[in-house]
Amino acid sequence: MAYTLQQLSDFEDIRTLKHRYFRGIDTADWELVRGLMCKDVTVDYKGGGYRVMTNGVEETMLMLANAFPSNSLAMHHGHMPEITLTGDDTAEGIWYLEDVFISLERNDHTFGTAIYRDRYRREGGSWKIAHTEYERVIEIVYPRDEAGQIHSHMLARTGLKPEERTDVSHLLVWE
Amino acid sequence: MAYTLQQLSDFEDIRTLKHRYFRGIDTADWELVRGLMCKDVTVDYKGGGYRVMTNGVEETMLMLANAFPSNSLAMHHGHMPEITLTGDDTAEGIWYLEDVFISLERNDHTFGTAIYRDRYRREGGSWKIAHTEYERVIEIVYPRDEAGQIHSHMLARTGLKPEERTDVSHLLVWE
Amino acid sequence: MAYTLQQLSDFEDIRTLKHRYFRGIDTADWELVRGLMCKDVTVDYKGGGYRVMTNGVEETMLMLANAFPSNSLAMHHGHMPEITLTGDDTAEGIWYLEDVFISLERNDHTFGTAIYRDRYRREGGSWKIAHTEYERVIEIVYPRDEAGQIHSHMLARTGLKPEERTDVSHLLVWE
Repeated sequence: MAYTLQQLSDFEDIRTLKHRYFRGIDTADWELVRGLMCKDVTVDYKGGGYRVMTNGVEETMLMLANAFPSNSLAMHHGHMPEITLTGDDTAEGIWYLEDVFISLERNDHTFGTAIYRDRYRREGGSWKIAHTEYERVIEIVYPRDEAGQIHSHMLARTGLKPEERTDVSHLLVWE
Repeated sequence: MAYTLQQLSDFEDIRTLKHRYFRGIDTADWELVRGLMCKDVTVDYKGGGYRVMTNGVEETMLMLANAFPSNSLAMHHGHMPEITLTGDDTAEGIWYLEDVFISLERNDHTFGTAIYRDRYRREGGSWKIAHTEYERVIEIVYPRDEAGQIHSHMLARTGLKPEERTDVSHLLVWE
Repeated sequence: MAYTLQQLSDFEDIRTLKHRYFRGIDTADWELVRGLMCKDVTVDYKGGGYRVMTNGVEETMLMLANAFPSNSLAMHHGHMPEITLTGDDTAEGIWYLEDVFISLERNDHTFGTAIYRDRYRREGGSWKIAHTEYERVIEIVYPRDEAGQIHSHMLARTGLKPEERTDVSHLLVWE
């Protein structure tokens, strides 16, 4: 009835893997994020008005870096993991997201929640993200409240500047 | 000074139990939620303006299904567990909730936090919720901001439709 | 490749330590918070417009109790720990904060996120906070929405009353 030391360690490490992912995207630490993903990672994020699909780490990094540029503020908090070990080196995870995304470009404020369904794979001794997808529970887009004074804005410093951005519209379907 | 494998496994499973509960209520997955509760579960949720008390799984399921109907959007994120094992098959847990509840019926938007104090019991090898109660730290009810465009609304699809709802006012005291 | 029982127990206890800290500050349970800190704890919180620095448990308790008085509402939710054991009795932790702070005195509403970098030390068999600092990712200060009806407000009951407050401006730099 009890898990083994190895299984408990795997739960621990898989949780930390995903924790790093969320910290990495909101601080635009792309070096960190890149190291958390399998080379053949696949992504399928089904938003309210969009669907993002990428294949492989290069495409995924391109999408992520352009999704959280310097003129946005982003909070992605992944909660309440339900991890299942499916083999010695494979696992699945369900997470429940709360996200806030403020675009100074579009001047809007998105509040959302979503359920992630991930697959993980151990490679060279480290757990990595092999597949990640989410389905929205809530997504509401508000006009940005301009009475709010922005006192801290890390992405302004760390995110891609307008002239560094790349067209990623081929990875995104607006629905 | 170290926990046993069994104890660490119990922490793991009790956390996952409660994680499933929160995912279940916000997606109206009542089959899932029902399986997480002892037959004689008791609930006592002390809100700002209300108190909900139920006795047994049937009454609890009735209350929950009617609390999160198709014309509402709900986020219940339970954080920062403090689990204490009180016996081989009994445990207690403290959790810290953040919730958002948007009622399209009353046209309001509730933001709240609360401290849960739960009791768990192992039945047939699985941890279940035996008792759950919370006390509010914050509860603020705002008029709904109708400038917000709802792009995703899972409960509209999965929650009880107006004609499926039942009067549960006997389980609820408005204070 | 697997952690030991002791290491897994340490992860568990360090997480619970920090969970208690957050519950303690938002409910103004200063007795609880005091017991979680090393006597020589150091704090360095770099906000958007402020920086708080304290040295030792007395100064830290003074700062905390005055930071969350009876005319404020506070939510501090620490998420997604990344714990590293650095010795038998020392550890480090990264946490990702979401906080809401509503001041009825200044009539404003702060929404923020931050990355904590903590150090922990085991003393007399219990893990305690030896050092804690954070750097803001997001901090936005809105005027308070007075259309919001406050139905629960625990700090009104448990936080320092105006006449009990102390001047802590020497611990705080406004930038």
